[in-house]
Amino acid sequence: MGDLFLALLHHPVYDKNGAIVTTAVTNMDVHDIGRLARTFDARAFYLCTPVTTLQRLVERIIRHWETGPGATYNETRREALALVRQAPDLDAAVADVERDTGRLPRVVATTARPGGARLGYPALRRRLAEDSVPQLLVLGTGWGLSEEVLHRADDVLETIAGVGDYNHLSVRCAAAIILDRLRNPR
Amino acid sequence: MGDLFLALLHHPVYDKNGAIVTTAVTNMDVHDIGRLARTFDARAFYLCTPVTTLQRLVERIIRHWETGPGATYNETRREALALVRQAPDLDAAVADVERDTGRLPRVVATTARPGGARLGYPALRRRLAEDSVPQLLVLGTGWGLSEEVLHRADDVLETIAGVGDYNHLSVRCAAAIILDRLRNPR
Repeated sequence: MGDLFLALLHHPVYDKNGAIVTTAVTNMDVHDIGRLARTFDARAFYLCTPVTTLQRLVERIIRHWETGPGATYNETRREALALVRQAPDLDAAVADVERDTGRLPRVVATTARPGGARLGYPALRRRLAEDSVPQLLVLGTGWGLSEEVLHRADDVLETIAGVGDYNHLSVRCAAAIILDRLRNPR
Repeated sequence: MGDLFLALLHHPVYDKNGAIVTTAVTNMDVHDIGRLARTFDARAFYLCTPVTTLQRLVERIIRHWETGPGATYNETRREALALVRQAPDLDAAVADVERDTGRLPRVVATTARPGGARLGYPALRRRLAEDSVPQLLVLGTGWGLSEEVLHRADDVLETIAGVGDYNHLSVRCAAAIILDRLRNPR
């Protein structure tokens, strides 16, 4: 069975005008996606930011809940944050997965933008069940992963469609839907 | 076709020790669940808090994005927040749905706790498709809706299971999964 890894990129992502930016780390993303990783059996969740002050912030959040006052205050947070790892960028996350599993992961990018060949959920589920290659699911902050990341990825996952044209979910909510679809096929 | 409404209760909900409390409103919940409502075609999203200072806070958030500086800064937020309504409690939300649609909604509560008869997703989807009764999906903050709310509800929705026993999703993530399951059956 292949291991599932998550990565949340804060660079290179788009802002609302299509410029490539580095977004700030959102505390809620660390907690929510950590909990999702724990609930849906991801092996680790890489928080990727190139900004060292933000890396220190994430370090403090993790420490607070791991060994600080939070560890006894809320056990479920501790368990979720135990899966959070930091990496400056996608390449560093890929390298860490390789170090951890002994295999290069397949990089599966996500986007809300349509177009191009897309990997369907059944196909990704099949891989996770039958293949021993780790899969690294890459999520973008801001207005989504840059084209550069989509091109560099091995696959781009099928977009999540709503009822109409509106397609602006938070990355926390998109991650929740993706993991539920992967782990709870119906 | 029945209309779908959402309500997020900040009281009466449990804290981690099982005491019934009133939680604070989280800015991120307003935005994330507003966006979910817009994406997955809920008719309105009731933010329920009995605390008047928090009601005023929510009012300010909505105004900022509706007619304040945010309206031109981020159009997609404006659209999402246009669905947010305030109510002091569940009864007021139910009354507002009745005023709006001319019908009393069926109250469908959600919980991460197991036990009791549960409404499945296919059954709720069928109702939304075939029945003209509005369905009011009730979400809890903190450590979840109190037993009182679950008893008062007409139905309790099937819980979301992860891969193992860990079951501590944020309410934003749980709402995302529930709405995807309702609107995108697979």
